[in-house]
Amino acid sequence: MNPIRAVVFDAYGTLFDVYSVTARAEQLFPGKGEALALLWRDRQIDYTRIRTLAAPDGAWYKPFWAITVDALRYAAQRLDLRLDAAAEAQLLKEYACLSAFPENLGALRRLRAAGLPLGILSNGNPEMLDISVKSAGMQGLFDHVLSVDAVRQYKTAPAAYALGPAAFGVPAHEMLFVSSNGWDACGATWFGYTTFWINRAGHPAERLDAEPSGTGHDMNDLLDFVRARGIAVAHG
Amino acid sequence: MNPIRAVVFDAYGTLFDVYSVTARAEQLFPGKGEALALLWRDRQIDYTRIRTLAAPDGAWYKPFWAITVDALRYAAQRLDLRLDAAAEAQLLKEYACLSAFPENLGALRRLRAAGLPLGILSNGNPEMLDISVKSAGMQGLFDHVLSVDAVRQYKTAPAAYALGPAAFGVPAHEMLFVSSNGWDACGATWFGYTTFWINRAGHPAERLDAEPSGTGHDMNDLLDFVRARGIAVAHG
Repeated sequence: MNPIRAVVFDAYGTLFDVYSVTARAEQLFPGKGEALALLWRDRQIDYTRIRTLAAPDGAWYKPFWAITVDALRYAAQRLDLRLDAAAEAQLLKEYACLSAFPENLGALRRLRAAGLPLGILSNGNPEMLDISVKSAGMQGLFDHVLSVDAVRQYKTAPAAYALGPAAFGVPAHEMLFVSSNGWDACGATWFGYTTFWINRAGHPAERLDAEPSGTGHDMNDLLDFVRARGIAVAHG
Repeated sequence: MNPIRAVVFDAYGTLFDVYSVTARAEQLFPGKGEALALLWRDRQIDYTRIRTLAAPDGAWYKPFWAITVDALRYAAQRLDLRLDAAAEAQLLKEYACLSAFPENLGALRRLRAAGLPLGILSNGNPEMLDISVKSAGMQGLFDHVLSVDAVRQYKTAPAAYALGPAAFGVPAHEMLFVSSNGWDACGATWFGYTTFWINRAGHPAERLDAEPSGTGHDMNDLLDFVRARGIAVAHG
């Protein structure tokens, strides 16, 4: 069993709770908010993949925030919702200033206290990550906040996952990569990380022939996984 | 304006009508068939992209038929549907033996009669394309049936789109690439093809900063586009 010498987290949906976006969408478009939030998220991820696939050299790369705006506009148009400038600004502001999942701050602090260097490895561009970390009250918790913007390739490109080992100076198999996106946990597993899938929604495992090293429901399960690898993490 | 010296088509949803799959799903799972068909299709495309993104060298490549099976199983599990072997076999058989959209056969014959070499360029693996072409009654209409299987990279990877010019010996900008998937039309536009998006569903344009050379509702609109480029295509 590989030792764990550092932990890197996916950001959106893993550290930051994107639920408030759906709530705001529902407030703006009663009865259609959930559909809007879902299609928005779908297209956001689709556009990252389509752009990186089409140009491994980054020629069609566009920063995540700009893609997030594109995806919102597409989703609203597709659902025939009148997204005026004010509504768009409200939804984007909601996305920019997310909360942490309730158990996350305590869990991150205990991992740090156990001596583990922590990081973020996200599709988000540096500016939006910076705002998100602050609005979730996570300043000072991470040794590295890594954005795929540095390589202009989105996950699941190997160049994106390679940012972790390069920044921490630790081989991937001795790093724990944590994501609540099943596909992201699989991508990191392929790359060579030790991985943990926080399956908050209780979804079935993605059928990608890649099994995360561990799975749980929330960050507390992650702490148990880390303890089982011999690291003394305090209980809350 | 570039001349058109050959036409290549995407297959599933463009030449072959996948609606019958939804109908069968609805028959098997009343009230949930459409959700199953949608999630199945979503995961099918997701898995192609995730696998190619993660390994441009094709290390995680899996043929489209196997991915289609994976995606169906995931979708059924996620929707809590009991997909027994018989139901699975029925749905897969439906997918394997699709019909052509009603206007397609006539349109393809008229394009050929106008002297244009025709082809397919699809994510589908050769075996499934072969069956699909036959069950849609399209034998003998195509000079090249090209599968990304040859390069183990799915669309929108440039290596996939490069199969067209290589097979026809015609530069991409003198070839017309036709797809009913907006993202596919954009990917081919980026690659350098002259492109036509058959927007059957009347969806908004994908916000990918790539505009297809032409857009229409069905294959008859495509024929008008080809006529406008100076090729004498007979009227039906």
